[in-house]
Amino acid sequence: MNPDDLALEVASRMRRLEAAILGGGIVLEAARAGYAKISLLAKPDMLNGHGSVHGGVIFTLADTAFAYACNSSNELAVASQASIAFLTPGREGEVLTAEAVEQAVAGRSGAYVVTVTGAEGRVVAVFQGLSRRIGGKVVEEA
Amino acid sequence: MNPDDLALEVASRMRRLEAAILGGGIVLEAARAGYAKISLLAKPDMLNGHGSVHGGVIFTLADTAFAYACNSSNELAVASQASIAFLTPGREGEVLTAEAVEQAVAGRSGAYVVTVTGAEGRVVAVFQGLSRRIGGKVVEEA
Amino acid sequence: MNPDDLALEVASRMRRLEAAILGGGIVLEAARAGYAKISLLAKPDMLNGHGSVHGGVIFTLADTAFAYACNSSNELAVASQASIAFLTPGREGEVLTAEAVEQAVAGRSGAYVVTVTGAEGRVVAVFQGLSRRIGGKVVEEA
Amino acid sequence: MNPDDLALEVASRMRRLEAAILGGGIVLEAARAGYAKISLLAKPDMLNGHGSVHGGVIFTLADTAFAYACNSSNELAVASQASIAFLTPGREGEVLTAEAVEQAVAGRSGAYVVTVTGAEGRVVAVFQGLSRRIGGKVVEEA
Repeated sequence: MNPDDLALEVASRMRRLEAAILGGGIVLEAARAGYAKISLLAKPDMLNGHGSVHGGVIFTLADTAFAYACNSSNELAVASQASIAFLTPGREGEVLTAEAVEQAVAGRSGAYVVTVTGAEGRVVAVFQGLSRRIGGKVVEEA
Repeated sequence: MNPDDLALEVASRMRRLEAAILGGGIVLEAARAGYAKISLLAKPDMLNGHGSVHGGVIFTLADTAFAYACNSSNELAVASQASIAFLTPGREGEVLTAEAVEQAVAGRSGAYVVTVTGAEGRVVAVFQGLSRRIGGKVVEEA
Repeated sequence: MNPDDLALEVASRMRRLEAAILGGGIVLEAARAGYAKISLLAKPDMLNGHGSVHGGVIFTLADTAFAYACNSSNELAVASQASIAFLTPGREGEVLTAEAVEQAVAGRSGAYVVTVTGAEGRVVAVFQGLSRRIGGKVVEEA
Repeated sequence: MNPDDLALEVASRMRRLEAAILGGGIVLEAARAGYAKISLLAKPDMLNGHGSVHGGVIFTLADTAFAYACNSSNELAVASQASIAFLTPGREGEVLTAEAVEQAVAGRSGAYVVTVTGAEGRVVAVFQGLSRRIGGKVVEEA
């Protein structure tokens, strides 16, 4: 099976299984081997007490892109650690996009960098995630 | 005003303003100067594709406790960075508790440690957040 | 063997084996089960181009305290991840102290919080480290 | 002045001012706008008690590349936070290389990703640093 086709099937399956996350608003834009891109429209119920998008929403979006990317080879992997820096506030009504790129894989561990952008490519947050393969598959392989 | 009373009013206000976060499920357990404790019942719509509580949900819970704690003196503060390590999976149906403790304050920056626990005190995740005061207040002071 | 005595022997052994780190300047102040405290006099050759103590020196001090604490039960452990926030600059000629406290242990993983302080208890940096036990011992047990 | 020429002068100045760091062993391989690459031969006095390169040495190398990259425009910047994941041990006698790439800049903050590699491109560690501009210059501009 083509690695990019497999990655897309894995991301699609994960998307379906966790359909309720962020109110069902996550859109899968692209998935390839070691890569995923998703987006989300920031709605009023996603704001924090200061009126900008809640950090938890931004993290969840980044973490979801990371999860798709680190499972893209269909080797079941979970997040063991993640770090996020919030650079600019996310605003109600804008589309937030998270793009996850594989940085390194060593043994059962993998490192991924995710960039979350808002309108006109403004960087909202940067994220680095560390995954660990735990055995098993996401989808069946022929 | 007593600092602990002020902290409770601040957390209560923030709780009300961001009532929709995590499906409205966050319960404010306690708030004092530099401290907050909140809890959440993990529902089926909070699971990831692997069947455990989504990392974004756990982060959001930790981040919310952190936000209450770093705003507890009523000096408006936002998260600039956070790191989280996932130690054990969160399970559907269990109550997750996040307890945020102030570790250090220097100038406009503050560092907070949050521990997320599940049933029987099992540690689910540990979190460290860095806040920055941006001017302004959360609630009016007499 | 008393757990605190074992912790002190482990830290002492590690101290001796890595005696050259930071120019040999690390002083072991205390070690107990899940805990270590060390100090360092900040010398001119530890400064960065801006004239304050190099971030790598502060990290190395914190990381060393973390290593002593996460090996304190004599179960060989290595750092898998660490995060550090720099709150105030370290100054030439001051004694920097790093105090590592165990936050949580789950399976082979452990989380530790380290606080680095300078003169008069000023917080210089906060650190969170994640360790993983890899099998083996630091010192022989009778 | 050409931005890449300026970046090289800034890195060279910082290299000279902090010449003693890591026993004077840091070699400046390349510096451009938003980018720096440095290397280090891992010597016996850089090992930890487990016989591999001390995490503090690896962090210091990554942090130094980050510092050169985040100051590359000659706007004085300091590290406010950094996260590192250790993927494989560094070995005595190998050359470690740290390559820092600018990920995003927003206002006075910048995010940089650093990859530390050993022999044959093996990834030793990944690092993400957050910088803050504090006013001032590293070198004089005509």
